Amino acid sequence: MNIAPLSKNRIKEIRKLHLKKYRQKANLFLAEGINCLEEALKGTMYPVREIILSEDVLKKKGGHISDLIASSDIQIYSCSRHVMGELSTEENPQGVLLVCGGTCVSIEELRNRASDTIIYLHEISDPGNLGTLFRSALWFGFHQFVLGPDCVDQFNSKTVRASAGALFRIEVYRSADINSLYRFAGDEEYSLTAAVPLKGTEIGKWRPKKKEILMLGQETHGLSPDLLKMADCCISVPGSGEAESLNLASSASIIFYVLSCFRRNREKSG
Amino acid sequence: MNIAPLSKNRIKEIRKLHLKKYRQKANLFLAEGINCLEEALKGTMYPVREIILSEDVLKKKGGHISDLIASSDIQIYSCSRHVMGELSTEENPQGVLLVCGGTCVSIEELRNRASDTIIYLHEISDPGNLGTLFRSALWFGFHQFVLGPDCVDQFNSKTVRASAGALFRIEVYRSADINSLYRFAGDEEYSLTAAVPLKGTEIGKWRPKKKEILMLGQETHGLSPDLLKMADCCISVPGSGEAESLNLASSASIIFYVLSCFRRNREKSG
Repeated sequence: MNIAPLSKNRIKEIRKLHLKKYRQKANLFLAEGINCLEEALKGTMYPVREIILSEDVLKKKGGHISDLIASSDIQIYSCSRHVMGELSTEENPQGVLLVCGGTCVSIEELRNRASDTIIYLHEISDPGNLGTLFRSALWFGFHQFVLGPDCVDQFNSKTVRASAGALFRIEVYRSADINSLYRFAGDEEYSLTAAVPLKGTEIGKWRPKKKEILMLGQETHGLSPDLLKMADCCISVPGSGEAESLNLASSASIIFYVLSCFRRNREKSG
Repeated sequence: MNIAPLSKNRIKEIRKLHLKKYRQKANLFLAEGINCLEEALKGTMYPVREIILSEDVLKKKGGHISDLIASSDIQIYSCSRHVMGELSTEENPQGVLLVCGGTCVSIEELRNRASDTIIYLHEISDPGNLGTLFRSALWFGFHQFVLGPDCVDQFNSKTVRASAGALFRIEVYRSADINSLYRFAGDEEYSLTAAVPLKGTEIGKWRPKKKEILMLGQETHGLSPDLLKMADCCISVPGSGEAESLNLASSASIIFYVLSCFRRNREKSG
């Protein structure tokens, strides 16, 4: 294992990745923890470029980490606990920081490789919600997300953390505007289904089409009128009427569950 | 509307409520925002004792707030934006801070008033998760929670915030140990169902009993072996096998949905 010390300049560059504009400029983002490293090495979308270990973690787990990355040419650096505290985005750093490659990919790249289920997110503003959405989707085997223009950055550290490693197995595309989504759905013959808080078809009565784009809206304001107009179908999670709303990631998880049950039953019966 | 200025001493006392030990000593906790106030006034478990408004909010919304609290004897105080910043637990204070009464109630108090569905939480450590669980449960009409001894405080500001007002409509009880839960379930004829990440009965095949205590475990380690031994039934949310785990609040929301569907269908057919 070839371990280099971190230069002052590299520390400065890595710290900059806490901010979106530098992440976008460098096409890099940060992830933390050994679990994340294991997931990152399974995926191919976001290659690990560098691993920074605090000295105590290097001593205890250096061998294991070296085994994990095997013969790849990922550079490992070590630093003091103090420097790790500066580099980390966590309150209690785990001592394992990953610098990963990550670019924004246009929805056009999704043509010819699209699966039967695509999740479209409109103006999601809470990075934790976004990460939880990735995690739930992956649980049910849904891999492809399209993010509208005003969604939070998928490489935000809170998103990466909440995804619990799932980000590395999820393909994220960006649509520049609603029209590019609409064109894509039309060309590729997807049904557009909008999740709405109330008054949609109860999800238990929903009959998903073979190819679905599931549209989920912003935490407070939901989907825009334009997106609702585009939808072939609106669905809702039925409630008792006592609570004002469901958390976005919770309601999405319920919809993913219902969709995955429907698809599994169709596979069995077909 | 009788509005008093906040004394220095009161400011000090309210700031102390950021910490669990002072909340427990005073049997008080903090909540924020007009939405929360509206929900708090609908519930009876946690009475609003004081409302603190920043001067700008008092000017804009004082009339509306005064209408909301009507003839109740809730005391309203006003303070500067700066003082509100010190009192608030939020990064961007909304300017409406509530001091509410809240005590810990033993599971024994639940006898004779228990509903058909009780949610038991074991060692939940993330306050945001706890609040999201309250919100999801209320959506489906489940009102009663029992928290095991090592659960995070239900009056933690992050819990109150994540619950989006739902806390005020939820009854929370505490069990001192596993035995008190087991005795309660036996005496009151509840089935104990444990949610486990893998290898339980698939929730689609689960047949809940008339009276259910649904046991949910800690984010990382799940339920303890003792709780699993006590369970009449273990259930899991089926997945594709690709993700390591589901977020606790997401999987609980899916289970709540399935349980509420089952209960509604039984009501219809029975």
